[in-house]
Amino acid sequence: MRVSELVAVSGVPLATVKYYLREGLLMPGESSSATQAEYGEQHVRRLALVKALAGVGLPLGKIRVVVGLIDRPADTVFETVGRALSALPPYPAGGDDGDHPRARAVLERIGQVYDPSYPVVAQLERALAAAESVGLPMTDDRLDVYARHVRAVAEIDLDLMPTDSVENAIEYAVLGTAIYEPVLAALRRLAHQDIGAERFGTDTFDDLASADRQDRS
Amino acid sequence: MRVSELVAVSGVPLATVKYYLREGLLMPGESSSATQAEYGEQHVRRLALVKALAGVGLPLGKIRVVVGLIDRPADTVFETVGRALSALPPYPAGGDDGDHPRARAVLERIGQVYDPSYPVVAQLERALAAAESVGLPMTDDRLDVYARHVRAVAEIDLDLMPTDSVENAIEYAVLGTAIYEPVLAALRRLAHQDIGAERFGTDTFDDLASADRQDRS
Repeated sequence: MRVSELVAVSGVPLATVKYYLREGLLMPGESSSATQAEYGEQHVRRLALVKALAGVGLPLGKIRVVVGLIDRPADTVFETVGRALSALPPYPAGGDDGDHPRARAVLERIGQVYDPSYPVVAQLERALAAAESVGLPMTDDRLDVYARHVRAVAEIDLDLMPTDSVENAIEYAVLGTAIYEPVLAALRRLAHQDIGAERFGTDTFDDLASADRQDRS
Repeated sequence: MRVSELVAVSGVPLATVKYYLREGLLMPGESSSATQAEYGEQHVRRLALVKALAGVGLPLGKIRVVVGLIDRPADTVFETVGRALSALPPYPAGGDDGDHPRARAVLERIGQVYDPSYPVVAQLERALAAAESVGLPMTDDRLDVYARHVRAVAEIDLDLMPTDSVENAIEYAVLGTAIYEPVLAALRRLAHQDIGAERFGTDTFDDLASADRQDRS
């Protein structure tokens, strides 16, 4: 197809398509004459991916990292996908590569590797510090339940990952990691509501306080 | 304590304390003379709560809703806590109270009540629509696993909720809902990494693709 058709099919404006071509986010078309190039399905797909990555919050520089890994993967699946995932926000603040004591303690307890250079470890440390600062530090009983069930969620995420091509795997890993976070957050809030209705029904705070006193007596 | 001590103990500047008093976010102190008032532990605690609520992203108007519910709870625990939780971001866009077909289908499948007026239902609908738009629509196999494990997470959240006072319950529900979302998101990403290392080890994409071909033959 000609570039005008690519614009029509992808819904990405011509100026943006040209910009992506210049920036190497979109691979060049096949020259059909001195001034024209032919585009195909891979271009439509790449434009959809770039659009989706921008939609989950990746700035252009990080989108370049992701599509660069599709075009030139690292030696192993693990390293390729891992590097692509590092492109996801939130990004560590400058100088955030020190020790992460809360994250280390959590990862040791749940038996996972602690690697302070991995951006998500800094993200976990910040989240744990924020919980502490509002008087709700992570406790072992909460952590054990969270870790077990989050792992089960992560298992199905990996079960469903396509591994037939680099592009499919990277696209799924990056988009799936980002796109299901708000789904999981909303499901948790709705489960709170559902369980709350079950447990408290029409109880007043006085009912609960007297039940609480009975528990302790 | 005098207001100067309250400022020192809470770390909230005098101008802000005065603003919170005017806005009704902080209850007045006990007048000790025409120009002075005495403050106590409840004021220190309230300032800490207002600070924490601002820290998890609540604008002042929503913080007023939360502290208003502590001071004047609704008839039941469920309604009081539910209204306090509605103060949490993300806030529904205007006109977002229509039908939410994706959220409805999901909630019907997992056996939970569908109430389109509840803000989290709109949040779930948006998250599901976003997943669909990047080519990763929620499937039943994924949903069944997500729902089961998210519910277990929500159960421990409610197990650990203090019910001895309105203030403790609301504070825990609002802050805990917000503050553990990024913890859960970081744990999921770290579990992906851990399981990925286990499953793929040092596999290349060629290894996986040939394994994939064998599976299908």
